[in-house]
Amino acid sequence: MTNNILPSWNDTEIKRSVLKFIERISDKDSEDFIPEENRIAVFDNDGTLWTEQPFPVQLLFALDRIKELAELNPEMKNSQPFKAFIEKDIKTISTFSKKDIMTFLFKTHDAKTPEEFESNVKHWFENAVHPRFKFSFYDSVFKPQVELLQYLRENDFKTFIVSGGGINFMRVVSEKIYGISSDRVIGSSGKTKIEYEGSKPLITRLPELGSFDDREEKVNNIYLHIGKRPVFAFGNSDGDLAMLRYTLAGEGLKMALLIHHDDSEREVAYDKDFKISPLKEALDVAEAEGINVVSMKNDWNKVF
Amino acid sequence: MTNNILPSWNDTEIKRSVLKFIERISDKDSEDFIPEENRIAVFDNDGTLWTEQPFPVQLLFALDRIKELAELNPEMKNSQPFKAFIEKDIKTISTFSKKDIMTFLFKTHDAKTPEEFESNVKHWFENAVHPRFKFSFYDSVFKPQVELLQYLRENDFKTFIVSGGGINFMRVVSEKIYGISSDRVIGSSGKTKIEYEGSKPLITRLPELGSFDDREEKVNNIYLHIGKRPVFAFGNSDGDLAMLRYTLAGEGLKMALLIHHDDSEREVAYDKDFKISPLKEALDVAEAEGINVVSMKNDWNKVF
Repeated sequence: MTNNILPSWNDTEIKRSVLKFIERISDKDSEDFIPEENRIAVFDNDGTLWTEQPFPVQLLFALDRIKELAELNPEMKNSQPFKAFIEKDIKTISTFSKKDIMTFLFKTHDAKTPEEFESNVKHWFENAVHPRFKFSFYDSVFKPQVELLQYLRENDFKTFIVSGGGINFMRVVSEKIYGISSDRVIGSSGKTKIEYEGSKPLITRLPELGSFDDREEKVNNIYLHIGKRPVFAFGNSDGDLAMLRYTLAGEGLKMALLIHHDDSEREVAYDKDFKISPLKEALDVAEAEGINVVSMKNDWNKVF
Repeated sequence: MTNNILPSWNDTEIKRSVLKFIERISDKDSEDFIPEENRIAVFDNDGTLWTEQPFPVQLLFALDRIKELAELNPEMKNSQPFKAFIEKDIKTISTFSKKDIMTFLFKTHDAKTPEEFESNVKHWFENAVHPRFKFSFYDSVFKPQVELLQYLRENDFKTFIVSGGGINFMRVVSEKIYGISSDRVIGSSGKTKIEYEGSKPLITRLPELGSFDDREEKVNNIYLHIGKRPVFAFGNSDGDLAMLRYTLAGEGLKMALLIHHDDSEREVAYDKDFKISPLKEALDVAEAEGINVVSMKNDWNKVF
């Protein structure tokens, strides 16, 4: 009976729990009913909505971009962290923290205006090919999750991305690949300032990280951008734990989920060993704290 | 023929221009067509969507709150700026800038948690009465503007508030009075930090102004929160000029409007003389820059 709903999810305990949750909070006669204006669902992006292996998509974009930058600035080739990125020295890159990488990314995102940056990102998406899966990055999204986002919206949820990834990087494609409008994308952001050309205000992007949207900062940014506590949260790493816990600490019925990448055949099996964004603490506390662990291998019948 | 649409607007040139704009950008065969995902409309709040006279609504909330605070901290009564606010010394208050006032407001918004602050604001709205109009602040909104917001949404616009007012103050009532969900409210924001109660993350509000959402900062915040340039913008003061200009500097058809409060009978007639938020420069450049000036007296047949 539930085969038409979320078809890429296997009929396991997890899928049944998700459907049951949505049914209960939608039922006006249930004590678990949640009015539409409070149906807030937040999703991490890298590793939760699209693949982050071997590297987060935005890092792959930066790696292509830095090759062009290095041709203009040859001295880059000999100084870290640029050297490691230019040489795709995975061993060295793997020792950098997520914040190191985001700081670096914002330095390589050298477009001065929003329009130029958007055009660079769009151009890259139109042409780049995933190093392992050989598909367009438009296809690097997890099909079961796109179905879930859609199903939540059909049930009057507002769906948000809350990601460590760059806010304006994701926005270029979020409407097309997830059906999520730019204003419902929250992420790490660079600083900007306004300059004038005559009376025309121009947004100038500064190559400097403003908010690094990871761990507790995800909760601060949920308050800043959404202003309400989510009732549904989905992540895949320790960087999402604060957001999952914040969701579960609310009143009434709520649900938090965590993808465990345990599918080496169809994607990659990894957790605490992925230095850029490890999954360890969240997995350790999941059962005790009521966080549902999704097995990519067992709970999904399709990945991409 | 247009009487059923925007009934509180008189059938003047302004109303006809707004309807014509919406018609043209909605017409798929027109070269002015704007796809739904780019139909972004931004509205200032104080003086644009609700009355800001004699003082902005949030300041009236703070004035009631400070009386309670002064009872707890009697020394407040003798030190500025508290003294002026407690004594409702309008002359002295009028010499403070909007930023002085916002900094002061964030100091008096002493609720430690989002839930406590929301409950304080809600309680005030349920009980407070406007000093001049004697109605509930729920009724202090401009009826023609509520109709316009609704009509824009019926034409697939996303409607946003972009205001100097406190983001989480407005959010308590924005859904109810404007039909605008909390995530589509942008405003001045205080700093927050996350503290833990066991494994439970708690958002702690700090009595410190973070972003003062006025003038150029409105454009920075539109980029941060929306990530797209608006095609329709509505303000009423010099604090909105950067946002109106940013809208008009975009490609394609767009529209910017400015309310001129010239109706001393039904509301208040004021512009450059209102120190907290003057209207001078914007009015001076309006005609040359293509900003439509709305006369409250002539263009609206109802105000509240």
